[in-house]
Amino acid sequence: MIHYKAILKVMGGLMMLLGVLMFPSVAFAYYYHSGDQITLIASALICLTIGGTFFFSFANQDQNIRKREGYMIVALSWIIMSVFGMMPYLLSGTIPNYSDAIFETVSGFTTTGASILTDIERLPEGILLWRSMTQWIGGLGIIVLTVAIFPLLGIGGIELFVAESPGPTSDKVHPRIRETAKRLWLIYFGLTILLVVIYYLEGMSFFDAMNHSLTTMSTGGFSTKNNSMAYFNSPLIQYTAVFFMFLAGTNFTLIYFAFKGHFNRVWASDEFRAYFISVGLLVVGIFAAVYFLMDDSFEKSFRDVLFQVVSLVTTTGYVSADYTVYSNGLTIIFFMILFMGACAGSTSGGIKFIRHLTFVKNSTLEFKRIVHPRAVIPLKINGERVTGKVITHIMNFLLLYLMIFVLGSIVMSIAGYDLITSFGAVATSMGNVGPGIGRVGPVDNFAFFSPFAKLFLSFLMLLGRLELFTILVLFTPYFWRAN
Amino acid sequence: MIHYKAILKVMGGLMMLLGVLMFPSVAFAYYYHSGDQITLIASALICLTIGGTFFFSFANQDQNIRKREGYMIVALSWIIMSVFGMMPYLLSGTIPNYSDAIFETVSGFTTTGASILTDIERLPEGILLWRSMTQWIGGLGIIVLTVAIFPLLGIGGIELFVAESPGPTSDKVHPRIRETAKRLWLIYFGLTILLVVIYYLEGMSFFDAMNHSLTTMSTGGFSTKNNSMAYFNSPLIQYTAVFFMFLAGTNFTLIYFAFKGHFNRVWASDEFRAYFISVGLLVVGIFAAVYFLMDDSFEKSFRDVLFQVVSLVTTTGYVSADYTVYSNGLTIIFFMILFMGACAGSTSGGIKFIRHLTFVKNSTLEFKRIVHPRAVIPLKINGERVTGKVITHIMNFLLLYLMIFVLGSIVMSIAGYDLITSFGAVATSMGNVGPGIGRVGPVDNFAFFSPFAKLFLSFLMLLGRLELFTILVLFTPYFWRAN
Repeated sequence: MIHYKAILKVMGGLMMLLGVLMFPSVAFAYYYHSGDQITLIASALICLTIGGTFFFSFANQDQNIRKREGYMIVALSWIIMSVFGMMPYLLSGTIPNYSDAIFETVSGFTTTGASILTDIERLPEGILLWRSMTQWIGGLGIIVLTVAIFPLLGIGGIELFVAESPGPTSDKVHPRIRETAKRLWLIYFGLTILLVVIYYLEGMSFFDAMNHSLTTMSTGGFSTKNNSMAYFNSPLIQYTAVFFMFLAGTNFTLIYFAFKGHFNRVWASDEFRAYFISVGLLVVGIFAAVYFLMDDSFEKSFRDVLFQVVSLVTTTGYVSADYTVYSNGLTIIFFMILFMGACAGSTSGGIKFIRHLTFVKNSTLEFKRIVHPRAVIPLKINGERVTGKVITHIMNFLLLYLMIFVLGSIVMSIAGYDLITSFGAVATSMGNVGPGIGRVGPVDNFAFFSPFAKLFLSFLMLLGRLELFTILVLFTPYFWRAN
Repeated sequence: MIHYKAILKVMGGLMMLLGVLMFPSVAFAYYYHSGDQITLIASALICLTIGGTFFFSFANQDQNIRKREGYMIVALSWIIMSVFGMMPYLLSGTIPNYSDAIFETVSGFTTTGASILTDIERLPEGILLWRSMTQWIGGLGIIVLTVAIFPLLGIGGIELFVAESPGPTSDKVHPRIRETAKRLWLIYFGLTILLVVIYYLEGMSFFDAMNHSLTTMSTGGFSTKNNSMAYFNSPLIQYTAVFFMFLAGTNFTLIYFAFKGHFNRVWASDEFRAYFISVGLLVVGIFAAVYFLMDDSFEKSFRDVLFQVVSLVTTTGYVSADYTVYSNGLTIIFFMILFMGACAGSTSGGIKFIRHLTFVKNSTLEFKRIVHPRAVIPLKINGERVTGKVITHIMNFLLLYLMIFVLGSIVMSIAGYDLITSFGAVATSMGNVGPGIGRVGPVDNFAFFSPFAKLFLSFLMLLGRLELFTILVLFTPYFWRAN
């Protein structure tokens, strides 16, 4: 039996939290007299009222939350947040129709960063801050998920690689996981504040610094400027963004280690090394080609390539230059980066290096197994043996991800979009990146899509953000038949 | 130590066989006075002389052929066949340059069917028959490989599903495998003869019947006509081709069972059912769309869709209608069919249903495993449990296939071709199909590619035909380091 009341209680709590988190936007709206104060207060009060009603109605429900409730809570959390989070857009009339508003909000909470807005700078400050806030909240949610919920649910096979998060010893959340989660939130919160200060000192307005810090640390990529990070024509700001995007794509536990001075533990992580080295190789390789192809200066070419590679690998999606203008070959390489994702235990979306690493390591071992068929050749990550069950699960995840990409592209093509645009929109939505290729390139937006396409892409963002299985398992008979 | 002399002996034998197999073309050339008699005789004699020299020089070498020699023999066989098989084209001047000649020959022996010829009908009869013959020889080779060699080498994980081919009990070919191989060749040979007769009775010239029978049964797809099967504007011929393409895509062991009247054993095969049902669903679904989109008659629409689906799924590659003119959505669906392949134990190339089935079955089981984490839930095919090792190997194959597709597309893009053409050319080459999308659509040819691109695509055809691992293992240090 599914304990629906326990679920409703959690959802109520979540909506109250959402209401509370709207107040910073209210403050900014008042400060800037941006005219959206009443809208935001109204939205916040609606969230608090409805959320409170649910929460306190079921407050005495101390039913256990077990695996099945866990799945429903995770899936419903993002849906409820999106439905109520879009109120400020709708009530203020800044995004007047539902499909646009839901797209923009899902793109926010999933830290994707794709936008249907054609003129972002037209929006009042309060709404803009709320838009950035949705991404920061999404990032926060992902940290909870990865550290505390996924290990419990056994999703994605990557929980094992998030250092210091022990496997669940019972069906209840382990107290040590709570500790880890708190520590990681502190890092997330601390780095966000730090980045506001740095962006501000480097010349952004306080408002822009605040917004861009929220969307950098969450690897979200919403900007307050139509030209995204290209607007800030300052190498200093752009390099800062690169550094913090890279940090936000790192397993937060490793940042904690680095903070404590244990750099050797950082470098000991197979995933971090793969992430670091891959980004390095991509930057060097693409930079060589771009410098050869374009007339820009050495520094400008390098910065553009570095920025775009880090922005896409970390699934942030800021843009400082159009990566589709170089050549066909480079466009396809940037397209492939949409399938990367950074590290498990970070706020980045997508497939993530731990899975790529598992596949690459297993591939080389398969050859070894062919040559030595009788030998038992285990796969090791961070020095520890990975079980066959986990390898199978991760490879299945990869194949499922690609299959959904293919089916999604077919749906988009049937909906009337050209192949390249379909591939780009689906890949960037599933990977929670933001920009794609074709008509959804780095200087385009998603406004032209039909309402159906917008809802479909929103669904894909959710699928990708919640590691596929969390959502898909709800559609299986096993889930509903289980006791 | 690798026993090179044993390898040279086998290669010598193979070249002699190749020379012998040129004589049917000589006969046709004389009959039609097509002017290429001397060229073909010369080619045959060169093969016999060089092959004979190697074979008889090392005739006394009774060194054991073990796994490592096995890999080299398989890879070298296709390369040697292609190098010597292109002689008739070069000597006759019908295909005067090397990159074109190697492409056409590799496309033949790998049963791909992609062509660089812009006017096929201009070629003399002897050469045309040789061109079709290369595909038939390729199909023959694949039967040997699947039944006798791959089980020995442990390649691709699919040998387990080819019914009645027992696992190797020692490093030597099991006598029962020899029996199975002989039986399958007999089916291959018998069906080829039968199809010549049927095509002839249905109105093809004897020459065309001969050629098209050779390239139907090998799922090759070379035609003697510029318009491929669209030339034969006869529903009867086209339905016949569909039926025999479908047969050629079926596990030959199952055809043997059917021939013996054991139809229940045919339907008991999970792979055959998946193949049959998938083709059925694709035909019905696409036909509904095409009938709605186009003005053709019910029968013509149905026949066109049936023909194109079966031709692509079986990796034959004959064309009776242009599948890229319907709509974007249908084009991408036809593109995805390039990744299917028919059954293991047939002459078809590509990924094959047994692997798709393993992935699909494992995916549903993963969800079951998530819901019941403590249960041991085995994957069964044809009622038998598949080991984790085989599942891992097959999923690794799938991922590796897709990765090579991606890398191949990047290479083609960098070589200067647009994304769609790159995707199409790489997918159709790896899958040994023939037609693709973009500039290599069903009514196009491969003539416009650069020599580099032609050689690269030839390499991809070999990779795909030899189940990736056979070729790739030769590039690993494990192979060369092993004792």
